[in-house]
Amino acid sequence: MAIILDGKKLADKLTAELKTAVSTLEKKPKLAVIIANDNPASQIYVKNKKKKAEEIGFESVVIPLKSDVTEEMILEHIYILNEDKDINAILVQLPLPEGLNKKRIIEAIDPIKDVDGFTSYNFGRLALGYNPYAYPCTPKGIIRLLNEYNINIEGKNALVIGRSNIVGKPVALMLQQKNATVTMANSYTKNLKELAINADIIISAMGKPNFIDSSYVKDGAVIVDVGINRINDKITGDVLFEEVKNKASFITPVPKGIGPMTIAMLMQNTYELYKIQENFIL
Amino acid sequence: MAIILDGKKLADKLTAELKTAVSTLEKKPKLAVIIANDNPASQIYVKNKKKKAEEIGFESVVIPLKSDVTEEMILEHIYILNEDKDINAILVQLPLPEGLNKKRIIEAIDPIKDVDGFTSYNFGRLALGYNPYAYPCTPKGIIRLLNEYNINIEGKNALVIGRSNIVGKPVALMLQQKNATVTMANSYTKNLKELAINADIIISAMGKPNFIDSSYVKDGAVIVDVGINRINDKITGDVLFEEVKNKASFITPVPKGIGPMTIAMLMQNTYELYKIQENFIL
Repeated sequence: MAIILDGKKLADKLTAELKTAVSTLEKKPKLAVIIANDNPASQIYVKNKKKKAEEIGFESVVIPLKSDVTEEMILEHIYILNEDKDINAILVQLPLPEGLNKKRIIEAIDPIKDVDGFTSYNFGRLALGYNPYAYPCTPKGIIRLLNEYNINIEGKNALVIGRSNIVGKPVALMLQQKNATVTMANSYTKNLKELAINADIIISAMGKPNFIDSSYVKDGAVIVDVGINRINDKITGDVLFEEVKNKASFITPVPKGIGPMTIAMLMQNTYELYKIQENFIL
Repeated sequence: MAIILDGKKLADKLTAELKTAVSTLEKKPKLAVIIANDNPASQIYVKNKKKKAEEIGFESVVIPLKSDVTEEMILEHIYILNEDKDINAILVQLPLPEGLNKKRIIEAIDPIKDVDGFTSYNFGRLALGYNPYAYPCTPKGIIRLLNEYNINIEGKNALVIGRSNIVGKPVALMLQQKNATVTMANSYTKNLKELAINADIIISAMGKPNFIDSSYVKDGAVIVDVGINRINDKITGDVLFEEVKNKASFITPVPKGIGPMTIAMLMQNTYELYKIQENFIL
């Protein structure tokens, strides 16, 4: 029976620590969130981020834009936030409305305020094995959660399923940086089951509900489920938890696994960017 | 018996094409090379790059610095080259003398003149799957050579041995971008032979002479040897060519494989940066 990697519990602990750290600060870290879509899920994400920021004692501002906003208008908002000395962290909630150039919009964020670590500069630093100003929140949360349970990464065979710029690609690079042998699988992969059954660590971010059953899992493997799939208003992961938990050594639940860790890392990144910027000013 | 992936032949073809293209230009592309070490191998590399540039009709300048040069002095040279409208491409020959901050020096290169694609910005673009101004020369040469022989990458299992920022990491990201399932092995990998024997494509950049013998190779695999190992003044690759060529479907020789492709791609990058910069000016 696997040990549950309790992301909720660790996220709560980290949030409490941040709250204590922030309580001693005169000037508070401030997070700005731009949202330009009326996707209900995005609206909830942004609301939760703002709520968490306020719980910790951060200041925050949400800039809601109509979904017919122009690219130039979003860029204008970003330029203003870049220049605003009170803003430490800028997040553009994805997805953006269709027709807008996402790359150009993300790239406009000053890397020192790029709280998601999605700009080319920060992503390049991550890929090169240097410290970016901020690591992307979900991969950072995954590594932090594995560390909390003293799970050894070095020399392990890790399989990353999914290659998004938000999760799969950066977590593969970060695991490799920690001396894992990493395989990056994608929708063209022909022998997924064979790769999975040989993996010591599986990170699944493919978005297929309950796809990874116990036939994909080696005895004692570590299973990290990043899937967030909605089925009839219920959220389920990529992993058939009830079955796989009997074979794995460690497993994340969905919900209360990587989800809360992602928000906790967003908060930590906000705080870290604040500290970098304050040091620059001193 | 494998087909030889003739990097020398393709490099010569591409060089000839570039020469024709450049002959029609009034203003010629110009490459600047900074070299700050007296390592004989580096001196030869730089000489060969300059020779190739001149053969094509580029202008070039080599800036030789003493190995006791300060970081600030190298940075000063880079700033001047960044501003110089006649310079299209800047290359800092590695390795740099010990004690100098390589990251800071490379990072000082304007990404639009970063002919090796080593700056965080360009490397981040590559990792994110966007077009950088320039792709690193060796990985670009590998992909170009595979393309020349119509070798299919999509859906294939590729094993990349070695994870340098110059070869292993970028070629893994580029193969993945082309829909391969990529495994990145390193010195901590425990089951290298098992991974190798299951791979459709092996890119070896580990620097161990003749290490990959036929016991590492699946029948019909594609073998790319990036090793440049000097033994008694003779250059040998990572792959035991005479043995492996009987098992592989395609194989690169050493020398005359990836080596000439790397220089050819450096020349192509110089030309491409020139074109980007000329278009900006127009």
